[in-house]
Amino acid sequence: MQFPSPVSTKWIANLIQAKIAGNEDAMIKGINEIHKVEAGDLVFVDHPKYYDTCLNSAADFIIINTLEVIIPTGKTIFFVEDPFEAYLTIVKYFKPFSATQQPINDTLIIGENSILMPKVFVGKNVVIGKNCLIYPNVTLLDSTIIGDNVIIQSGSVIGGDAFYYNTKKNRSQWYKKMLSCGSVVLEDGVEIGAGCTIDKGVTAETRIGAGTKIDNMVHIGHDVTIGKNCLLAAQVGIAGGTVLEDGVTLWGQVGVNKTITIGENAVVMGQSGVTHSLEGGKTYLGFPAELAGEKRRELIWIKRIPELWKKMMES
Amino acid sequence: MQFPSPVSTKWIANLIQAKIAGNEDAMIKGINEIHKVEAGDLVFVDHPKYYDTCLNSAADFIIINTLEVIIPTGKTIFFVEDPFEAYLTIVKYFKPFSATQQPINDTLIIGENSILMPKVFVGKNVVIGKNCLIYPNVTLLDSTIIGDNVIIQSGSVIGGDAFYYNTKKNRSQWYKKMLSCGSVVLEDGVEIGAGCTIDKGVTAETRIGAGTKIDNMVHIGHDVTIGKNCLLAAQVGIAGGTVLEDGVTLWGQVGVNKTITIGENAVVMGQSGVTHSLEGGKTYLGFPAELAGEKRRELIWIKRIPELWKKMMES
Amino acid sequence: MQFPSPVSTKWIANLIQAKIAGNEDAMIKGINEIHKVEAGDLVFVDHPKYYDTCLNSAADFIIINTLEVIIPTGKTIFFVEDPFEAYLTIVKYFKPFSATQQPINDTLIIGENSILMPKVFVGKNVVIGKNCLIYPNVTLLDSTIIGDNVIIQSGSVIGGDAFYYNTKKNRSQWYKKMLSCGSVVLEDGVEIGAGCTIDKGVTAETRIGAGTKIDNMVHIGHDVTIGKNCLLAAQVGIAGGTVLEDGVTLWGQVGVNKTITIGENAVVMGQSGVTHSLEGGKTYLGFPAELAGEKRRELIWIKRIPELWKKMMES
Repeated sequence: MQFPSPVSTKWIANLIQAKIAGNEDAMIKGINEIHKVEAGDLVFVDHPKYYDTCLNSAADFIIINTLEVIIPTGKTIFFVEDPFEAYLTIVKYFKPFSATQQPINDTLIIGENSILMPKVFVGKNVVIGKNCLIYPNVTLLDSTIIGDNVIIQSGSVIGGDAFYYNTKKNRSQWYKKMLSCGSVVLEDGVEIGAGCTIDKGVTAETRIGAGTKIDNMVHIGHDVTIGKNCLLAAQVGIAGGTVLEDGVTLWGQVGVNKTITIGENAVVMGQSGVTHSLEGGKTYLGFPAELAGEKRRELIWIKRIPELWKKMMES
Repeated sequence: MQFPSPVSTKWIANLIQAKIAGNEDAMIKGINEIHKVEAGDLVFVDHPKYYDTCLNSAADFIIINTLEVIIPTGKTIFFVEDPFEAYLTIVKYFKPFSATQQPINDTLIIGENSILMPKVFVGKNVVIGKNCLIYPNVTLLDSTIIGDNVIIQSGSVIGGDAFYYNTKKNRSQWYKKMLSCGSVVLEDGVEIGAGCTIDKGVTAETRIGAGTKIDNMVHIGHDVTIGKNCLLAAQVGIAGGTVLEDGVTLWGQVGVNKTITIGENAVVMGQSGVTHSLEGGKTYLGFPAELAGEKRRELIWIKRIPELWKKMMES
Repeated sequence: MQFPSPVSTKWIANLIQAKIAGNEDAMIKGINEIHKVEAGDLVFVDHPKYYDTCLNSAADFIIINTLEVIIPTGKTIFFVEDPFEAYLTIVKYFKPFSATQQPINDTLIIGENSILMPKVFVGKNVVIGKNCLIYPNVTLLDSTIIGDNVIIQSGSVIGGDAFYYNTKKNRSQWYKKMLSCGSVVLEDGVEIGAGCTIDKGVTAETRIGAGTKIDNMVHIGHDVTIGKNCLLAAQVGIAGGTVLEDGVTLWGQVGVNKTITIGENAVVMGQSGVTHSLEGGKTYLGFPAELAGEKRRELIWIKRIPELWKKMMES
């Protein structure tokens, strides 16, 4: 999330009641979670395991629960007891949730020849391009950005909150929700089937590339980036933060793990489970997904076990 | 289903045109299907295979299509030709279906600071606690009970009818639907993602325990009981009557069989298929789901078959 | 799609700017894609690989991008540079899309005692029989035909567009959508769970046979034909053009490939992946789905590999 305009380190320190160290007099552009940070960003970290990653990320500003770290030159740390709460405070300040009671929020910007069919819900700060068709019973939540020539079929929900919780059990009675302040971007020519769910980024974008076509009941997690001209068949699920490069095809019911990358023009056969990153230009099969040729040979080898047993007994 | 107040054996016998045997003069508290019966309940059975189970269950009152059984002391049997029809007659009497035309039924009880966003449907006898947020296009069907601090995202359907049919083909032209008269209970702090379906209990409750967080497109069958602080990732499906104890984690696309139990703090890896009950505190993988360590070793053994073959050929 | 009344070859040639060869003076009944063509139909083909199939199909009229073929006696070919565009032109002429703004279109024909609950959307030319119950937030898109005693639970979308694209990348900037002009037919006694999606046929019908019962979140692709009294458990997905004969049971999360046939009374166990046609009357398991007995033996053999290894090492 970019701030509406850059804010000073001192202003943020005051907002979250933090002690500053390092570069005390700088301007912060926005806040992002670690997978999406850019220069000028603020990030938070509350576990020693991730201190170094955050301090050495692109982020220039780090909310942290220790002072016992070496601050990289030019960077700023904000010391608080509970960085997670500080994050929530900042999000609530810049994107306070308010449940609109308008079925179609009057902040909607919509292009020529675009059609909203009956019973569509449109949240705040939604932009829809030209020549789009939004079918009945679609839900477009806050901050969804839609390009030109996009089709969204009935029942789909664009911009739901990330499934992202702080699961430290000692913090509160329950798992604490990481508030989502990101967005969904559907580029030109994207088509979304019926009954899909595409979650917004936690702090950044979930982006579906131009010309990508998605079948029914596909789930796309927060902060996923899908390239151009991909094809996703029905009931595919992609976990948070994963990247599909251009031209990837996933057949029905494929599941993809979080924060991995599937290379350009890769094809994954139906029901496969992608547990780790895959190279582009190849076809994959099975759980865990492997090169389809190897996997098919493996299935044949399994069928030869009784023969192997027999041969051994005879020898 | 509890009756509004206890009813006499004679009144029920008259309603379903049954012949009574055993304790002819008692008061019945409610009706339940066999997996959920409690003392004071009425249950029905129409297959000799299940006569003993029903007669010896917690139920004190049994609708049955035989008189040739030993009635346990103090219990009552109701003899009818078709116990399934008798069950339907009782459900229709106490919970007659009537399709409300109100978008938000005026029987709704809703707590302080709870918000229904636009296009929410609320059926009859729904209760919502405090500080809840119900997103657009959510459907809350009859008898849904929601605690405090609950979030339900767009497109989710709470309280649909059970997928439960009498499949004896000689009975009627089609499979006959077992009418659902139960409810869904979402305890405090439960969060439900977008596009989920949680069916009501057939006669009792489907219950999601306090603090449990559920991702998008998760299906929860009738009469499932989920403990506290469970995490269910996207596209998980849980069949009817199953129990998840506290702290269970199911990763994406896991499928769970009906009427089994997953023990406390068990973790099931993505896409696994749970066919039988699992002990708590362990991690499981694959189809059928087994201890993850064993399953991973098995996957390695499979890859060694060609080597095994070669060694044997050489020996 | 049948035309409202038969149209002449010359009229069609003019509409799509085609050169006619063969029988130049005939009447065309309708247009269908190759899997669904009937006598009197027009079909299109643009790839040499499929020229023969189309010329020798039931279709009497073929739109084609070559003149170098032998035209079967009595048939007509329409030569155009781009048959796909010609198809789109014909569909747009006979089924021009217009986004109705009526929540319930006034072309609806609905039988006695059928109930539409609140927030149902009904598109153009929908027919609903007697004694049906359509739950809140159901979407019935154009040309859906529903028999008697049908139940559709909340959130389901009937009649979405097919996931069917022309993926020749040289044709346009993006994959080009094959416009759907078919319909969905739900026969008498069909019951559909919550959150299902049933796509319309591309040019013909997607048909669910009488008495078939479908659980929640089931996806049925375009042009699928499901027989009578089938049972489909939650999260099943069936790809386009596939046939399920009568009495088939698919348990939860089963995936079925496109354009295959599952025989009468076959049973497919949960999470299985059906990659090819299956004979009726048997039970199947696994990926790829095989006879359950064989698959179970295979799972046992896999567990014996370490023993096999040990024996070999000792011998």
